[in-house]
Amino acid sequence: MLVLLKRGTGEPVAGDIASRLRMSGLSVYRTDHEGQVRLGAVGDGAAVDWDTVRGWPGVEEVRKIAVPFKLVSRTFQPHDTVISVGRCAIGSAQLALMAGPCSVEGEEQVFTIAEAVARAGATVMRGGAYKPRTSPYSFQGLGEEGLKLLRRAADAHGLAVVSEVMDPQLVPLVARYADILQVGARNMQNFSLLREVGRATKPVLLKRGLAATIEEWLMSAEHVISHGNAQVILCERGIRTFETYTRNTLDLNAIPVVKELSHLPVIVDPSHGTGIRGMVAPMARAAIAAGADGLIIEVHHDPDHALSDGPQSLYPAQYHELVGQIRTIAEVLGRRV
Amino acid sequence: MLVLLKRGTGEPVAGDIASRLRMSGLSVYRTDHEGQVRLGAVGDGAAVDWDTVRGWPGVEEVRKIAVPFKLVSRTFQPHDTVISVGRCAIGSAQLALMAGPCSVEGEEQVFTIAEAVARAGATVMRGGAYKPRTSPYSFQGLGEEGLKLLRRAADAHGLAVVSEVMDPQLVPLVARYADILQVGARNMQNFSLLREVGRATKPVLLKRGLAATIEEWLMSAEHVISHGNAQVILCERGIRTFETYTRNTLDLNAIPVVKELSHLPVIVDPSHGTGIRGMVAPMARAAIAAGADGLIIEVHHDPDHALSDGPQSLYPAQYHELVGQIRTIAEVLGRRV
Amino acid sequence: MLVLLKRGTGEPVAGDIASRLRMSGLSVYRTDHEGQVRLGAVGDGAAVDWDTVRGWPGVEEVRKIAVPFKLVSRTFQPHDTVISVGRCAIGSAQLALMAGPCSVEGEEQVFTIAEAVARAGATVMRGGAYKPRTSPYSFQGLGEEGLKLLRRAADAHGLAVVSEVMDPQLVPLVARYADILQVGARNMQNFSLLREVGRATKPVLLKRGLAATIEEWLMSAEHVISHGNAQVILCERGIRTFETYTRNTLDLNAIPVVKELSHLPVIVDPSHGTGIRGMVAPMARAAIAAGADGLIIEVHHDPDHALSDGPQSLYPAQYHELVGQIRTIAEVLGRRV
Amino acid sequence: MLVLLKRGTGEPVAGDIASRLRMSGLSVYRTDHEGQVRLGAVGDGAAVDWDTVRGWPGVEEVRKIAVPFKLVSRTFQPHDTVISVGRCAIGSAQLALMAGPCSVEGEEQVFTIAEAVARAGATVMRGGAYKPRTSPYSFQGLGEEGLKLLRRAADAHGLAVVSEVMDPQLVPLVARYADILQVGARNMQNFSLLREVGRATKPVLLKRGLAATIEEWLMSAEHVISHGNAQVILCERGIRTFETYTRNTLDLNAIPVVKELSHLPVIVDPSHGTGIRGMVAPMARAAIAAGADGLIIEVHHDPDHALSDGPQSLYPAQYHELVGQIRTIAEVLGRRV
Repeated sequence: MLVLLKRGTGEPVAGDIASRLRMSGLSVYRTDHEGQVRLGAVGDGAAVDWDTVRGWPGVEEVRKIAVPFKLVSRTFQPHDTVISVGRCAIGSAQLALMAGPCSVEGEEQVFTIAEAVARAGATVMRGGAYKPRTSPYSFQGLGEEGLKLLRRAADAHGLAVVSEVMDPQLVPLVARYADILQVGARNMQNFSLLREVGRATKPVLLKRGLAATIEEWLMSAEHVISHGNAQVILCERGIRTFETYTRNTLDLNAIPVVKELSHLPVIVDPSHGTGIRGMVAPMARAAIAAGADGLIIEVHHDPDHALSDGPQSLYPAQYHELVGQIRTIAEVLGRRV
Repeated sequence: MLVLLKRGTGEPVAGDIASRLRMSGLSVYRTDHEGQVRLGAVGDGAAVDWDTVRGWPGVEEVRKIAVPFKLVSRTFQPHDTVISVGRCAIGSAQLALMAGPCSVEGEEQVFTIAEAVARAGATVMRGGAYKPRTSPYSFQGLGEEGLKLLRRAADAHGLAVVSEVMDPQLVPLVARYADILQVGARNMQNFSLLREVGRATKPVLLKRGLAATIEEWLMSAEHVISHGNAQVILCERGIRTFETYTRNTLDLNAIPVVKELSHLPVIVDPSHGTGIRGMVAPMARAAIAAGADGLIIEVHHDPDHALSDGPQSLYPAQYHELVGQIRTIAEVLGRRV
Repeated sequence: MLVLLKRGTGEPVAGDIASRLRMSGLSVYRTDHEGQVRLGAVGDGAAVDWDTVRGWPGVEEVRKIAVPFKLVSRTFQPHDTVISVGRCAIGSAQLALMAGPCSVEGEEQVFTIAEAVARAGATVMRGGAYKPRTSPYSFQGLGEEGLKLLRRAADAHGLAVVSEVMDPQLVPLVARYADILQVGARNMQNFSLLREVGRATKPVLLKRGLAATIEEWLMSAEHVISHGNAQVILCERGIRTFETYTRNTLDLNAIPVVKELSHLPVIVDPSHGTGIRGMVAPMARAAIAAGADGLIIEVHHDPDHALSDGPQSLYPAQYHELVGQIRTIAEVLGRRV
Repeated sequence: MLVLLKRGTGEPVAGDIASRLRMSGLSVYRTDHEGQVRLGAVGDGAAVDWDTVRGWPGVEEVRKIAVPFKLVSRTFQPHDTVISVGRCAIGSAQLALMAGPCSVEGEEQVFTIAEAVARAGATVMRGGAYKPRTSPYSFQGLGEEGLKLLRRAADAHGLAVVSEVMDPQLVPLVARYADILQVGARNMQNFSLLREVGRATKPVLLKRGLAATIEEWLMSAEHVISHGNAQVILCERGIRTFETYTRNTLDLNAIPVVKELSHLPVIVDPSHGTGIRGMVAPMARAAIAAGADGLIIEVHHDPDHALSDGPQSLYPAQYHELVGQIRTIAEVLGRRV
């Protein structure tokens, strides 16, 4: 249920209303919108007499949230969520440009790439230290050592860090080095992991699962937020279809749908979404034209020798050119790089 | 096989080479590229001794076309095909803007919409007179009467006409009124229909089937071209996936893939691709940013009373605004409206 | 609308009721169930006052048919449709066993296979004379010559004939030789073709489209029936999914769903459904265990030299062994070969 | 690589060969087949000179394992793996019948259902104590309390227990109560969880992911086995397709494919695969006819009041009848209940 308070309701009264709802067994979340306090009360509200609540002092209106993703919905929070990370305000008019290698491979690699992407205009560096690999015999990442390298390279160039966490137990460790905790597509419904990142204090980048409907994706964001962490960034990275020419089918339709249904920022990963270097720039431009809040792109200075995902990594010069094109398209939508 | 002739080879020699290949039971198609004659020889070439052909006077090189869509491929014709229809050169730097109602419903309707889309910048008018309908009890279109109305309205506003043909026998009739013959998604592998439009003299708009891979789509274009009609415009209109929020999943990945594999122009239909009015503009912008050669969009002045597809039709004012946005995005790619 | 007449209503009254409904612009179809006449009145019934109809003499009840596939539904006809073809009663307790080569290739081939499948227990012979081929350069079938051969071979061994028709204009020709007109998966929504087979007097085997939902498949059957031909046999032959190991994903779930929703018989094609010889027998057994009314299976005595679909064709001995297994499974469901 | 030892090679020599391969940095796994020791050596074998290995005393042959799932493949182990759990030998001629409620809800519930399914012929009881739920506001399961109840109910009726584990940290806890550790579809590529169950001593039931290809599923089994636990039971439970009538599309094609590629047992879950009670029996029969090694089915004595998945649960009497039908079908394939 959505409980709208009267404008001008003082904090003590607002706090009191929230407490009374919690005492009924509900979880209560708050957002302020245009000077009005909005309380989202979720959980088993069967025992609550909502007509009585409507009569409480300070309560203006009580309304049902018709969608299953309550806290994620625009009904709960009409305005866009903006998440500040380093120099970047994700979800604002400024586009979030994240870039870097698929995997952290070594010191020279991350420093070279960090410099290149920072120069091109990126504000967040990506890089995997724990890699989800289909085969147990593939390179599994450098682990904590990789995180340390990534952090140092990013710091040297004024970049924030996003990196994947796969294991609930490792959330504190990854959070020590990364500014944004990435939950990968294969873990989108790993509810133990969602619970742990939901208890963390760092923003979460939640990738869409390969076979996840938009509603299921938003429900996974709801899991994170319901555990206390409202800083969720959605990331479209391609779904699985019958088409085999591309690695996945990047679903840009998800962008306008998510922007309509939810206040959360949504970015696009055209590297994993297509798996083909030559398609990254066209689909990145398209993502921004469709209204995405940013991009996460794989860049490597020597993709032929990359330990993973070389064929889909842009060269630094290609990334630089792409950012230039993005700049003009962004202006059409009243945004900027 | 691709037979490249020496530059400067005279027409008699070129004609002679083509004849000799035809006498071997092959079909021969020709394209001229940067001053060089290229002959595509298709069919059962088992009996042909290609080493001998290599030695023929005028022959520079004989090369295998590695993909199954021979005539459609960039191997056969490296440069873009440009198809002139009315004021529009489809596949050129100028974007092809096609717009109009889903179905032709009556005189006032088509004239009102024709005026609106022409004013906004469209050069081709769409409108269905024969409608493929899932239910036998739905409105099936006005037939020839609809085509007459569409032609008159388009002529009154300087527009070309595109309209769907569903029945092989009706190809001559539809070709009498329309400038472009549309083959719908459900008929993409209706080989009898492909044969008939392949024998027509009007360009063909070939929509991608709901479950067609890009390769199958190009193979259907190959069917049309192999019957003699090289003027094929491809149209992405959404594929079927597990996602149910949108009517279909508009697959913009197909744009860069097709531009890489084929010389044929490719446009996008965001109206059928999404089925939701509010998504048409974002996906139309994205299509152009991804490199599409044009758009076909449903526009209706009174969508609430449309006999089909009202919920996905743009209002004229929305279409006008969209064309303005497209104009700026096109410039990023060196194109124009 | 479903109009149920009172038991014992005479033919003159029943005919009169149907006439009056037709005069209101509706199409009327009839089925008799347990001694009761049931009239399905379809089309635009907006102008009809159904409360008045309820009061007509002879009318017991007027009920809405809640599904879009009216005549195909169990609401219209609760009992199973049984279609008699040669020695086979398709949809009865006796399973319909159809078998034969993918394509008719020549006299010796069809006679050899006809003898083999007849001996194994098949009652209908399959064989394509007009082949839908993705590539315009593949073998397209022997045409009428192929139909003649197929007919002679089938007659020689007491088999009925099923063969595909792709072109609306060729329906009369194919109907001259075949006992069952097959509409292929790619033509499931070729509405011109559905209209023509709907006007034919031979039963129609309607294959499910690669991306067709069960509802769309039943709607295509509705097209056929609404044109006057109630003898429709449905055929599941695999849908398109992300899985690439098999050619298609044979969807046996469709069997119990169709049996619940519709009175039409439904058979299964495990040859096209899987594309792999070794999978035909397991999936054929599974189809019968799931409740299918029959099987259509590709059998070839020399699959290595087949002009199409050799890798998925059973050897005659394999087919013989399979029929034996089917016999026992059929008994579990109270059926027989 | 597969290293086949000469028949009659003594244990000391076999152990020595394995040690030398391990010293080269490879992981070595062993299976004995028809009196011959087969060593699977996996990992980065770049530095190993296989021609030298071929010359080692006791080595008969060194062969590449062509598929990416090495230890899971029939190349490594030609014969079927049989996993003994309680009275059940999963993968043997005896079918594995697992049944029980979706969730453990309380003492009376589990004891009632345990008695019913044991009487019908089941040998393993299913029941969820930790439930993966799309919504954070749905019933999440009784946790350890549920496991205790399940264990007691199963013991009272001579049943083994299978229950899902979602969190790597909880593997030891679940393993204390359950005989088989279930990894759910959403966690099929949760590699941290696969690692933990790979280190456990209890068999693992690995469900296929909603969008997992058969190859990816086998690769996840390879993860488990490569961590030391060779007791993996595969479970097909439906994939995600465009069809919306059923909850998922149960993919029985996977059964013959898996039996061809792998030595692991594979069972089917028609309850989650279809989501519709009336489809469970037809698809269960079909699964056995297709060659599945067993079934896992939801049974509830009062499905209308079940806390989860009531609409797809069989009544005890329906389950009883189904087991009877399965018995006859099993005989066709030389198996038994």
